[in-house]
Amino acid sequence: MGEKKKDKDLSTGRRPGTPANARSPDPLPSWNEGTTKARIMEFVNEVTYEDGPWFVPPHERIAVFDNDGTLWSERPAYFQALFTMDRIRDLAPQHPDWQVTQPFKAVLEHDLDTLIASGMKGLVELLMASHAGMTTTEFENIVRHWIMAARHPRFDRLYTELVFQPMLDLLGYLHTNGFQNFIVSAGGIEFLRAWSREVYGVAPENVIGSSIKTRFELRDDGPVLVRLPEIDFINDHNGKPVCINKFIGRRPIAAFGNSDGDLQMLQWTAAGKGRRLMLLIHHTDAQREWAYDRQATIGHLDKALDEAKRRGWVVVDMEKHWREIYPFEMKKEVV
Amino acid sequence: MGEKKKDKDLSTGRRPGTPANARSPDPLPSWNEGTTKARIMEFVNEVTYEDGPWFVPPHERIAVFDNDGTLWSERPAYFQALFTMDRIRDLAPQHPDWQVTQPFKAVLEHDLDTLIASGMKGLVELLMASHAGMTTTEFENIVRHWIMAARHPRFDRLYTELVFQPMLDLLGYLHTNGFQNFIVSAGGIEFLRAWSREVYGVAPENVIGSSIKTRFELRDDGPVLVRLPEIDFINDHNGKPVCINKFIGRRPIAAFGNSDGDLQMLQWTAAGKGRRLMLLIHHTDAQREWAYDRQATIGHLDKALDEAKRRGWVVVDMEKHWREIYPFEMKKEVV
Repeated sequence: MGEKKKDKDLSTGRRPGTPANARSPDPLPSWNEGTTKARIMEFVNEVTYEDGPWFVPPHERIAVFDNDGTLWSERPAYFQALFTMDRIRDLAPQHPDWQVTQPFKAVLEHDLDTLIASGMKGLVELLMASHAGMTTTEFENIVRHWIMAARHPRFDRLYTELVFQPMLDLLGYLHTNGFQNFIVSAGGIEFLRAWSREVYGVAPENVIGSSIKTRFELRDDGPVLVRLPEIDFINDHNGKPVCINKFIGRRPIAAFGNSDGDLQMLQWTAAGKGRRLMLLIHHTDAQREWAYDRQATIGHLDKALDEAKRRGWVVVDMEKHWREIYPFEMKKEVV
Repeated sequence: MGEKKKDKDLSTGRRPGTPANARSPDPLPSWNEGTTKARIMEFVNEVTYEDGPWFVPPHERIAVFDNDGTLWSERPAYFQALFTMDRIRDLAPQHPDWQVTQPFKAVLEHDLDTLIASGMKGLVELLMASHAGMTTTEFENIVRHWIMAARHPRFDRLYTELVFQPMLDLLGYLHTNGFQNFIVSAGGIEFLRAWSREVYGVAPENVIGSSIKTRFELRDDGPVLVRLPEIDFINDHNGKPVCINKFIGRRPIAAFGNSDGDLQMLQWTAAGKGRRLMLLIHHTDAQREWAYDRQATIGHLDKALDEAKRRGWVVVDMEKHWREIYPFEMKKEVV
């Protein structure tokens, strides 16, 4: 893959890192002034102040971010689920049996009720049919083509335009302050890695996600890794601290999530010594984004919200705390 | 763990990075002049020369290093096997049955023949008894205590003094040239991470190894990760490219190994586009270190040596190409 292609900026917002801070002395311009913003900045100031009691050396400044609902939207469904359905439709001509076999039939007929009723078993069948059976290189190309072309049904924009500008600000702010940012998502690790650097400024090796197994094969034209229709690990709930330990090997000092699937990651982060930042994003903005919490299936936020309140973690009220939600909202100001 | 302790330099050699290059304009002072050294430097010059045809941007400069036999010695046995036996002896008072049960009895009686005869099954039993059943934090402390005190039988030195000075030079040289160095070892990932930063300058998150499973538990005094007596993944042979893909998510441009267990990692690296460096260390120095290859059980080098010769990979003849083997050999010159 050529470097030019890799460097293409898929989001239309500021890239994490220098630009935001170069533009303004405020490192978090998309955050409204108030306690939430102040607490984030106080944490960063404390752990980076070399003569203070809470100083953390740069190599220990590990921050972990959930992806769906934390760095980008997750409605009407996880974007990777929409990718999966597009992929099934693309592959359908080679699988005439899908026309009469569930859950494929439901995808082809846009029959969401049947699809949801097929549950986890149906989901895994769709995932394996769409995510396995090709080499890792082929899969990366499939994802990159989709992410550069597919458009979100509500906003008619690229999915990568539906990242949260305040979180891009935050990624850049932490990076500028010597943090290493990791994505720790229940989404597929290779789905995310295909575009994480261009969109979030997070390198592939700093992306952790759910995975399927791969097999090394020596073919006539060289070695390949083949993606197998077999789950390797589900990186959610208890799995998040397990994977953080496996992939990073140290405890984060800051963790950002938005659902009960992130609770254990935040607990694991909170249990370390010294200053810690645990933050939950509460989707409260039905106008600009979506509003949901305890009743939601996708992005279910219930126990984690209670624990955040009990333990004094930061809870972001999207409607109140975020000046902009998406990068495209700031187009006019930037120009 | 306090920063002072973490920063203690466990090896007595130069730390990778600035010191070697500050001392001398030669970035690889422990390598004798000749084709091997020239080929390494030619590769680095080509991929870092911005106006040249082989330029690789810094974020794609991934180098992977095997550990046992590549970065440190592996005789009389893998050092982690010696740790395992020390650990079994430490735990023996709490397990009276081990006095009469194999393979534990063999460890307690220093009966190597019986131990070797117990094979993979015996080895796994010893590993599980010594490496599982505690939290990840407890295990890290156990390893750190051992590595700071245990001494090698032949040299009567810390094991971390038996790292290869030319490889420390090489790690530093690549790091200085914008490379990200990863360790990709068949050894235990958490065993290595307990000291990789201090000894090699390689951060825990850049260490990949074999692993056992862990389980997240919420205890009264907070969350822990418990190490389970169950293999998660063996990072050897075909497993190396699989893990490189899983942990790093991109193909290395340089790979360093010393045995058939590294062959697939080198093949995977070689199959990418552009300039690549594949290097095998051939243990040829019975005087200063050890000499072994095709007949060896530990560090078996046979097929990989044939493939290296056939494909023109760099093969290091330790006796001829390395001016010093261990850091302690250079003590006099440095002072």
